[in-house]
Amino acid sequence: MTVDNFEEVTVSRRAIFKGKVIEVVVDEVKLPSGEMSQRELVLHNGAVGIMAVTSDDKIVLVEQFRKPLEKTVLEIPAGKIEVGETCYKERARRELEEETSYAAADWSLISDFATAPGFSNERLYLYKATQLKKVADPLPQDDDELIVCHELTLSEAKAAIDSGWIDDAKTIIAIQQWEIQCLKGK
Amino acid sequence: MTVDNFEEVTVSRRAIFKGKVIEVVVDEVKLPSGEMSQRELVLHNGAVGIMAVTSDDKIVLVEQFRKPLEKTVLEIPAGKIEVGETCYKERARRELEEETSYAAADWSLISDFATAPGFSNERLYLYKATQLKKVADPLPQDDDELIVCHELTLSEAKAAIDSGWIDDAKTIIAIQQWEIQCLKGK
Repeated sequence: MTVDNFEEVTVSRRAIFKGKVIEVVVDEVKLPSGEMSQRELVLHNGAVGIMAVTSDDKIVLVEQFRKPLEKTVLEIPAGKIEVGETCYKERARRELEEETSYAAADWSLISDFATAPGFSNERLYLYKATQLKKVADPLPQDDDELIVCHELTLSEAKAAIDSGWIDDAKTIIAIQQWEIQCLKGK
Repeated sequence: MTVDNFEEVTVSRRAIFKGKVIEVVVDEVKLPSGEMSQRELVLHNGAVGIMAVTSDDKIVLVEQFRKPLEKTVLEIPAGKIEVGETCYKERARRELEEETSYAAADWSLISDFATAPGFSNERLYLYKATQLKKVADPLPQDDDELIVCHELTLSEAKAAIDSGWIDDAKTIIAIQQWEIQCLKGK
């Protein structure tokens, strides 16, 4: 089957909420069939995540309480992109230093993707950072973040996925990417 | 560093919006430090996704317009869990049939994870479905969904990630998982 036009055209937008992290709107859309429908949208400025691997082959992860999940989880270092911010690698560099006290000499963007395309435009830019060194006088952590660092081998990280301690999509993508690179001998 | 208590205790909750897909609230929380902060939360009932692989080693994907991304993307078949629904595998079975006309004889839950833990509790239950057969008289698609099926080899799927046609976390996780299984010769 071929479809020429999938587009849902916005006919009107109703503003619901504008917070510090998210904005919520409801769009009235015209479907390709001509029918009308509604889409509930959570607008987000995007985020960076960092797959930081030490010289002795451990991934650097941060433990923190996630209010939406009502529990403490282990994730790759990550942070929101501020409005107007254009250099995402610089944001990634700052987040890594603030959350883990590490600086990395080698950076590469390995993937970027939508986290929850059913209702949000949040985009995650996933960087790989290697050649890590602890910074003597690191950037301070955010006031409202309580973070503890952990360094795990690949098998420890996979066990943490199985146990649910690691429990989010971006961290699973980073660890699976790392496993694929290891399996390919890169 | 060891931390005994990461918990952010909810002191009050402000209801912002209750839609068909999401509910939005703002929690006033007490941090472990004793300081107060706010958390903007998008509550979601969760979803299922299906990594369906045919007997000739192709993954079944669906092309659809995603309003939050304002573009057409290729994803694994997926769908929201309804309020009160407890058998997620049955939801996955229905979504696969509705979106692709396939029924699968073999099902397994391979992962479940939070999609966007910074602001949402949405949870995705990822199933693997194999031994696929086309259903003669499949369940109808949802009225407001326009979906076209594609079947891709692993290398085609990886190229679709690189090109951005595949652009979301759950689909990347499924394809990485498939690649890991192939690399391990499973």
